[in-house]
Amino acid sequence: MTGQPRILEIRQNVLKRNDVIARELRERFRAAGVCVVSLVSSPGTGKTMLLEKTLALLRPSARVAALVGDLATENDAARLARSGAPVRQIVTGTVCHLEAEMVRNSLADWNLAELDYLFVENVGNLVCPASYDLGENARVVLMSVTEGEDKPLKYPAIFHGADLAVITKLDLADAVEFDSDTALANLSAVNPGVHVLSLSAKTGAGMDRWIAMLRGWRGM
Amino acid sequence: MTGQPRILEIRQNVLKRNDVIARELRERFRAAGVCVVSLVSSPGTGKTMLLEKTLALLRPSARVAALVGDLATENDAARLARSGAPVRQIVTGTVCHLEAEMVRNSLADWNLAELDYLFVENVGNLVCPASYDLGENARVVLMSVTEGEDKPLKYPAIFHGADLAVITKLDLADAVEFDSDTALANLSAVNPGVHVLSLSAKTGAGMDRWIAMLRGWRGM
Repeated sequence: MTGQPRILEIRQNVLKRNDVIARELRERFRAAGVCVVSLVSSPGTGKTMLLEKTLALLRPSARVAALVGDLATENDAARLARSGAPVRQIVTGTVCHLEAEMVRNSLADWNLAELDYLFVENVGNLVCPASYDLGENARVVLMSVTEGEDKPLKYPAIFHGADLAVITKLDLADAVEFDSDTALANLSAVNPGVHVLSLSAKTGAGMDRWIAMLRGWRGM
Repeated sequence: MTGQPRILEIRQNVLKRNDVIARELRERFRAAGVCVVSLVSSPGTGKTMLLEKTLALLRPSARVAALVGDLATENDAARLARSGAPVRQIVTGTVCHLEAEMVRNSLADWNLAELDYLFVENVGNLVCPASYDLGENARVVLMSVTEGEDKPLKYPAIFHGADLAVITKLDLADAVEFDSDTALANLSAVNPGVHVLSLSAKTGAGMDRWIAMLRGWRGM
């Protein structure tokens, strides 16, 4: 494709610059003692719903906050702010993913030392966020039972790069005849040994294991 | 952001080049008398399932073929080829959308005059495919009842640019308490007057209206 090498070179520079900022962020998070967990998934997998319940479950004993990325609207931030936790929306416009610089700019005036957990909800997209390190301690990829068991094979980069895979909307598993064994085999194929949790934020099933995992990450 | 103007300029050149090829494709499709329909949606909305049923329903009376885009795997092409229709997979690697050039390259050795319909299934992504004209006659955006009613507001560009919106997985509407009025209002907000169909490829509900619409597009 004409011009392809030049585009590739520019993309590599963007990624390199992102990695530099992500390293700075990681160092800042470490120094502040905050555990940063990012969530990536397809649109409509239930990132915001999971976060909503997570903030409520963690809040009695932990100081939590969230950043949420979207192309447009501040709906998610408004929804999450009802938990009482500090929440900030990053409106990306036409940009299909969060970048480390957007996270840095959003956090410029935050005292991270006052937080135990910071959640970062990416734009709903199973492709582009895979390439951008945000300095997080753990990256969680979500897939819902309604999306089909093949998603890890079709979007391998994002599933490969995740520290944990969460299967959401477990309450709908029977209705969509979700084949858990196939989904687990596909997850293992692209990310051998990856830890997998299945849950329903709606019914609460599996939420205890998710909260326990978060507490483990923070060493609480 | 450092370097942003240069990236923007390059992106504009890529889009300009894409538009030139898309125009050539559109002219080629017109000359061949083939109706080209592209499908865009989030991963797991049911593009392939809808296409599978559509090919089977149209085939008795129409000559149909499909191109399917995915980052990895040829699973969808294999699934669709069971219909007996010619199907070709475009494996995009790390590219998060189809481009006109990929379509052109895939069709190089096809005699389009032998077809009544060509379907083009894009990579599952509600962001990036919005910017790339593929020369299609009609672009259809799918959203499933399981994704939530807010998706048009959160991914406005792709919903704005569609000729038809299809609400899929209607069989799950009650289970997820889908609010149809809100979804329609959100679709209208970003694409006033857009035609909307609701269907379930699984149960067949609403498929007659979808097939009638396709026949209308072709003037059959």
